[in-house]
Amino acid sequence: MPVPETTEARQAPPLHAPILINGAEAEVIRALRRQAKISRTEISNITGWSKAKTSLEIRSLVTKGYLVEVGEGSSQGGRKPGLLQINDQLGYLIGLDIGATSIDVVLANVGGKVLQRRTAVADVRQPPEEFLSRCSELILEMVKAQGCRIDQVLGIGVGLPGPVDFTHGVLIAPPLMPGWENFLIRDFFQRTFSAAYVVVDNDVNIMAIGEQRAGDGMQVDHFIFIKIGTGIGSGIVSNGKMHRGSIGCAGDIGHICVDKQGPICRCGNTGCLEAMAAGPAITERAVQAARNGSSPLLRHMMENNGGILRPDDVNAACREGDQAALEIIRASGQMIGDVLAGLVNFFNPSHIFIGGGITNFGNHLLVSIRRAVLQRSLPLATTHLSINFSRMGPEAGITGAVALAREYLFVMEDRPFSIV
Amino acid sequence: MPVPETTEARQAPPLHAPILINGAEAEVIRALRRQAKISRTEISNITGWSKAKTSLEIRSLVTKGYLVEVGEGSSQGGRKPGLLQINDQLGYLIGLDIGATSIDVVLANVGGKVLQRRTAVADVRQPPEEFLSRCSELILEMVKAQGCRIDQVLGIGVGLPGPVDFTHGVLIAPPLMPGWENFLIRDFFQRTFSAAYVVVDNDVNIMAIGEQRAGDGMQVDHFIFIKIGTGIGSGIVSNGKMHRGSIGCAGDIGHICVDKQGPICRCGNTGCLEAMAAGPAITERAVQAARNGSSPLLRHMMENNGGILRPDDVNAACREGDQAALEIIRASGQMIGDVLAGLVNFFNPSHIFIGGGITNFGNHLLVSIRRAVLQRSLPLATTHLSINFSRMGPEAGITGAVALAREYLFVMEDRPFSIV
Repeated sequence: MPVPETTEARQAPPLHAPILINGAEAEVIRALRRQAKISRTEISNITGWSKAKTSLEIRSLVTKGYLVEVGEGSSQGGRKPGLLQINDQLGYLIGLDIGATSIDVVLANVGGKVLQRRTAVADVRQPPEEFLSRCSELILEMVKAQGCRIDQVLGIGVGLPGPVDFTHGVLIAPPLMPGWENFLIRDFFQRTFSAAYVVVDNDVNIMAIGEQRAGDGMQVDHFIFIKIGTGIGSGIVSNGKMHRGSIGCAGDIGHICVDKQGPICRCGNTGCLEAMAAGPAITERAVQAARNGSSPLLRHMMENNGGILRPDDVNAACREGDQAALEIIRASGQMIGDVLAGLVNFFNPSHIFIGGGITNFGNHLLVSIRRAVLQRSLPLATTHLSINFSRMGPEAGITGAVALAREYLFVMEDRPFSIV
Repeated sequence: MPVPETTEARQAPPLHAPILINGAEAEVIRALRRQAKISRTEISNITGWSKAKTSLEIRSLVTKGYLVEVGEGSSQGGRKPGLLQINDQLGYLIGLDIGATSIDVVLANVGGKVLQRRTAVADVRQPPEEFLSRCSELILEMVKAQGCRIDQVLGIGVGLPGPVDFTHGVLIAPPLMPGWENFLIRDFFQRTFSAAYVVVDNDVNIMAIGEQRAGDGMQVDHFIFIKIGTGIGSGIVSNGKMHRGSIGCAGDIGHICVDKQGPICRCGNTGCLEAMAAGPAITERAVQAARNGSSPLLRHMMENNGGILRPDDVNAACREGDQAALEIIRASGQMIGDVLAGLVNFFNPSHIFIGGGITNFGNHLLVSIRRAVLQRSLPLATTHLSINFSRMGPEAGITGAVALAREYLFVMEDRPFSIV
């Protein structure tokens, strides 16, 4: 099997971080990651510093404009403590969620509050320069609408539908968008947004980050976020942190084998989960059911639809009680559940969140997935396991892209790659 | 499928930690985890503290007897810095590796240096009181031989061959040893060793910890340690930390499905990896080959062996060029590799270490596993993947048990459950 050439990727420039801080400052910022606002006493408790040292470090951060004092916290018996938070006026962040056929992009303040939003139809199979130029235009539009300066854009978080080498911020062997391989996305954006650092991740990871920061994944230490649509992928959180794996391609569950005798997948193997259970497999089975007469309803839909069927048609047929459509959805859920059962044994998550286009399929799909997991996983691993559709819908990705940009806002001067 | 009752486990007492430290002290100790000895300057660099503050904290830790000053480090231009390390004289730690038929136990100093060692044959299917009393006897023997006091035993790390609820230190639904379910192992040991805290983990996790602390897993952020013997299990390291999952049963890969049409497993499902590829499945296939005439050598061995075959016989036959034995080993490797292929896609480790009794099978097994993984995993995930037998052999478990005990030696007073 050919091994992709990654030399170029290895030579990609290191992450450019906008705000370098020292070790002591990093401790304050780290304490602030757990909560939006924090008192001096809390910082002192977390760091173990004296009051004097705490005041000194805070004063330095306030003087530099990184922190501001806001409102008043609840009293703990003494005088009401002033609260500190990261200075929203520091600048702006961009969250960019790139889909196969869409661009979803927001401008937020460094606190993560979304201030501007744009969406556009676009084809990711375009050359990356063209595609990303369109993204830059949308960002510039938002900068103008917000009335801020380009150099106030401090960070750009990008989600892309393909395998990302996270350290170097490039796509590696992306099946949907071969022209993007090793294209230096960071460099591209930094030509226009020179004050910004750029963090690139895959689309499912940013959904998982979104779920963790603003969804039901908050406070959850171990979860798997699964996106089911044209493909199938997952984002993994272990011990409260994104697990990206050694190369950054963890979570690629679409090519786990379901049936060695199954159809050939675009990856070259047979019977991959994606080839058997994702959107295209569902419509293919629906077309068969329409043709072989097992579903007159699907045939009718196909005839009225110029000879094609989409996943939504299968869903609609199922809602109208069509047995063949129901069976197709159940079979898909069963296969996804079989693969998840193994991952549940291996990973022992407390939550599985399901997102992506297929979530429209609703309860029939969810019940089939749950049933398969319960049947094949060990009881100990499923006792407290929750499997549900993500309630964030399409917001998961864009929320995660902004959160990803926020994570790298402050970076320690002597450890430029580690998140504070 | 019945859900095990875990109410009792939930009521198990919290971890009893012997040395409680404050936040600032914890920072020094944490810095010392990365290296055995450290200079004041290094502590200052890592913590971001002033020289004065660093000296103050170190003096406090030295006065309390937790740290000692040793030798001299290499000069960085200025005067040669005195080095600090954790005080070996603080007390002793016990590492206890319990197998299905064996006890392997060591007494080490808090620096992790093994000073005494005992091994014994024992049957884990005994009632836990009896079995653990034998373990206590062995520990007391070592304490006596070392000439130390019982109250100098500060920590006991225990590895057990079953699913462990790590937080509560009890076994949950252990198939090999049903009498142990929810037995309070910590309480048992603390009746004799009242100064010791007790950390209980499963046997494969302690092997993974051993590999991480003293084997080829040092400096490796993401790896899977697989134990193949009578059963099949794994220990997982993500972002440099043990991944135990939400209940603590992560890594249980023995019951991932290989073939739905396969034989019934002791878990009640069909075609589990363990039922198809572990030691007993190998000998069962060897017995078939002996009986159906496809291997005269295995038949001969079986006849000379009172009608039974052990995995080692299959290995010996393979070494003598027996084709049937070779095929049996290859088939086992192929199935293990097929499951690993999925886990490699999901987890993207840089290393897989293989341990347990089956490692005697050598290259034929290893090559089959590697081949299956390379065939079914995505190229991006296997480009830099190393799959090898652990070079630590049986030392992995006992080394990990001591390391586990060491991890909980210092615990922050306000966060009793988190490792410093």
